[in-house]
Amino acid sequence: MAGLNLAKCRKIVRAAFAKGKEMGMEPLSVVVLDQGGNVLAFERQDGASAGRFQIADGKANAALMLGKPSSHAMERAERQPYATDALNGVYGGRFVPLTGGVLVKDKKGVIMGAVGVTGDTSENDALCAVAGIEAATFFAEA
Amino acid sequence: MAGLNLAKCRKIVRAAFAKGKEMGMEPLSVVVLDQGGNVLAFERQDGASAGRFQIADGKANAALMLGKPSSHAMERAERQPYATDALNGVYGGRFVPLTGGVLVKDKKGVIMGAVGVTGDTSENDALCAVAGIEAATFFAEA
Amino acid sequence: MAGLNLAKCRKIVRAAFAKGKEMGMEPLSVVVLDQGGNVLAFERQDGASAGRFQIADGKANAALMLGKPSSHAMERAERQPYATDALNGVYGGRFVPLTGGVLVKDKKGVIMGAVGVTGDTSENDALCAVAGIEAATFFAEA
Amino acid sequence: MAGLNLAKCRKIVRAAFAKGKEMGMEPLSVVVLDQGGNVLAFERQDGASAGRFQIADGKANAALMLGKPSSHAMERAERQPYATDALNGVYGGRFVPLTGGVLVKDKKGVIMGAVGVTGDTSENDALCAVAGIEAATFFAEA
Repeated sequence: MAGLNLAKCRKIVRAAFAKGKEMGMEPLSVVVLDQGGNVLAFERQDGASAGRFQIADGKANAALMLGKPSSHAMERAERQPYATDALNGVYGGRFVPLTGGVLVKDKKGVIMGAVGVTGDTSENDALCAVAGIEAATFFAEA
Repeated sequence: MAGLNLAKCRKIVRAAFAKGKEMGMEPLSVVVLDQGGNVLAFERQDGASAGRFQIADGKANAALMLGKPSSHAMERAERQPYATDALNGVYGGRFVPLTGGVLVKDKKGVIMGAVGVTGDTSENDALCAVAGIEAATFFAEA
Repeated sequence: MAGLNLAKCRKIVRAAFAKGKEMGMEPLSVVVLDQGGNVLAFERQDGASAGRFQIADGKANAALMLGKPSSHAMERAERQPYATDALNGVYGGRFVPLTGGVLVKDKKGVIMGAVGVTGDTSENDALCAVAGIEAATFFAEA
Repeated sequence: MAGLNLAKCRKIVRAAFAKGKEMGMEPLSVVVLDQGGNVLAFERQDGASAGRFQIADGKANAALMLGKPSSHAMERAERQPYATDALNGVYGGRFVPLTGGVLVKDKKGVIMGAVGVTGDTSENDALCAVAGIEAATFFAEA
């Protein structure tokens, strides 16, 4: 797994938080998953509620499992709510079809992992994920 | 965990029941969770149905995990039913987006735990939770 | 369900705590389940650790599901550890084969419910459950 | 939750890694949980295997749920393997009875959270957790 190492993860998390601060957002929580959906790093800002890991993780995992940002899963959920039930079930609960789960790609478009952000509006969460990914010189698909 | 001790929990449960009796409500069940979502106290009134623990617990846990009363989760569930499915999944089934899961805060606004009430209408359930929390000299966010 | 009402549950919990205090035990947690395994009442004493509900509940449910105090399940677990794995699985995780899950019977020997206690040694936990059940004028099978 | 904020979590994680490096250990993974068992921070060092989050999390959660470091759960597992099966079940799989889940206490002995470390021997994992906790000026119970 060239590239998405711990130093890069830290850059992603810090830059996502910086974006949230710059825009005056609510306290955020940010997870970085590797391309297999396993957790690399997570941080929850002071003031964020207790259950934020699961939401961030579920957004990022939704992106990775389907190979598309979680915004796609959200669009589909609007049309086919039963798809959400089923996918949440098959992935053992690790599936949150809300915008904010963003793919991390290298310059050739290969998926390196995913970032999940929660705490503000779903659209703002995604902005922070993108800011983090780009600060680490990867390419974001939100 | 300063404050939300067993003596306070008993006050909350008793005052919630008293409110229900005063208003002629159906038999109630009341749970108190600590700030991390772990169970501190629960009582089910005579005549309440068998599965009330899980509903009270799921309302209170929904409030704690998201840092907002379960009435917020209910409003969102009306708009985005798939969000409920997903959150129920990520929290291992402990998520009930119905009014009646109320945050317990201290005077600085810090979350000390949550109270979940079930048995009557959701709005009445929340009234009882608030009455319990205030009787224990905490601040309720319903 | 004549008999195991909320007033009786409170007597059980209070008398179990009194026994623990009298004998200088660690902080206790006590659950009372109805004959179907559904939660009637629970209290966690100040100083008890976060995850005590699940242990108390799992002991009492083990007693009810098999119709024998959890001490029997513990004896069997010593001989057949794989039985524990299987029973924990079939009961969805609500099965703890440790002494301290005690049956509540009426004078005819009919099972009215079960009490689960955790916090001190398993043997002491069971002593407190028995003390609670007898204080409520039921018969204990430990 | 006074004290165990994100700045402290980062100190814990960095100092745990520093201890591992100093002693020439294998790549480590470190989680910090709040007192209710919810995730505050996690980092996995380069070269660590994919499933390290769950082990670190399960060790730290075992410590919090029982109010004792996971080394106690390990000792018990040696004597009563069925207790491990049952506790893993009641905690929904988040229970790993291996040394390396260490309690974070304040100077009054109040539990503030727990740290879980995995990657080297269990004893070395615990050494790193302790080093992290003490670097953040908390008290460790390993």
